[in-house]
Parts: sequence; structure tokens; C-alpha cells
Amino acid sequence: MLAPNFRHEINGEKLIMAIAQDYKTNKILMAAYMNEEAYEKSIKTKKAHYYSTSRKQLWLKGETSGHIQKIKEILVDCDMDAIILKIDQKVGACHTGYETCFYRRITNENELEIIEEKVYEPKDVY
Amino acid sequence: MLAPNFRHEINGEKLIMAIAQDYKTNKILMAAYMNEEAYEKSIKTKKAHYYSTSRKQLWLKGETSGHIQKIKEILVDCDMDAIILKIDQKVGACHTGYETCFYRRITNENELEIIEEKVYEPKDVY
Repeated sequence: MLAPNFRHEINGEKLIMAIAQDYKTNKILMAAYMNEEAYEKSIKTKKAHYYSTSRKQLWLKGETSGHIQKIKEILVDCDMDAIILKIDQKVGACHTGYETCFYRRITNENELEIIEEKVYEPKDVY
Repeated sequence: MLAPNFRHEINGEKLIMAIAQDYKTNKILMAAYMNEEAYEKSIKTKKAHYYSTSRKQLWLKGETSGHIQKIKEILVDCDMDAIILKIDQKVGACHTGYETCFYRRITNENELEIIEEKVYEPKDVY
């Protein structure tokens, strides 16, 4: 059985990096972690599951909001400790209402500038 | 001074995730970590520096190979613990000779399939 190398330990949990990327536009939607259970559930259900390092638990992305991430394809990196999920994203990936979690850029003045439009209102969803 | 939240501690080092993405094609080139020093050197020099969790040291990407990553823009995620570097990549990002470190996909039979062509020969470079 092919398995990634869950070699990065954070708060006692062995993890890989998981990057969700829109399968059509190649936009990076979010970056998170998976433990072995999250990885196996993602493979089995074709829906992205992650491991929350702050809440210390597995989560199905979109469980509350309905904004499920359907997995179209998985890529793996050279040393097998990071994966890309090619994703069909329902509505938006970010809990703040934006399509992606990377909705801000750092300006030359070292300030944050918002570069996306909201795709939904969080108060309507959570 | 705006700073990311280096909240993920691995092997005693406080880190953020850093994803290098081609600024033209949106291909994800690689995923790695930065500590505060790597982040500050990257901002100052406009060349991607990372922190190696295995070698436990800062590294300038391309220092040996010459395959430098010129930073065109930096995006930051909602909780400030992951960044995207929009990159102008010289030759290839992966030490294996491929343009990206994500040169393999996981098939339905749970096997690895190579999906890129090599862009250089590692033995000519390292």
C-alpha cells in the first residue's frame, strides 16, 4: 500500500502538508495538514479531510458550511511528505467568505491588500 | 511590522508553510517551510529561502544548482500561517530534474505515475 511519509510531527501528531488547488484554474484554495486517518478518509470518500493542529481533530472540509471539496486527483511530491489535492470546490474554500484562503497579498510597503471578492457571506453559512 | 504567525513547531523550530507557485502558469513548484529568518531573507533579497526541517538549517533555494527562485509576489492565508510565493523559477524546482516536485500522481490503483518530463539532468548540476 502506497502511503505518504507522515514525517512532520506537530503537537505529537504525524502529518503531511496538503495543498488544495482548483482543478480547473490552478488557483491554490488553501493549505492544511493531514494525518494518516485524514489521508485515508480522503482517498476512500473522494472528499477532502484534514487534521486541525489547533483543534487536534480530524475534520471533513465543508461539514458545517456545505462547501465540500471533491477530490479529482492527488499529486505527491519528491520526498512524499506533501500532496496536492486537485479540487472541485463548492462555493468557496475560506471560512471568511473568499474563494481561497490566500485572498491577500503583501505589498511593497509590507501591508496586506485584499485581492479577491467575497463569494459568500459567512454569517449566512456558519 | 507585518509578520506571519510562525505557530507550527517542528523539531523545536517555529515555522510557516511556504508554497512556491509559478507566477505565470500557476503550477505549484514545491512546498516547504520557513522560519522567521528564512522569511525575512526572502523578503529582503526577493530570492526564496527556506528552512530545512531535516538538515535543521536555512537554505537559499538554488544555492548549489543555480536554480534560484525569484519572488514576484507573496500571498498570505487567512490565519497567517501559510504563504504563497509567486515565483520566476530558473530551470526547475525539483532536485530530481523535474520542473516541479509534484511530478507524480496517485492512480486509481494506488500507484505512482510520472506526469512530467525532466527539464535537466541532476548529475550535470549537483
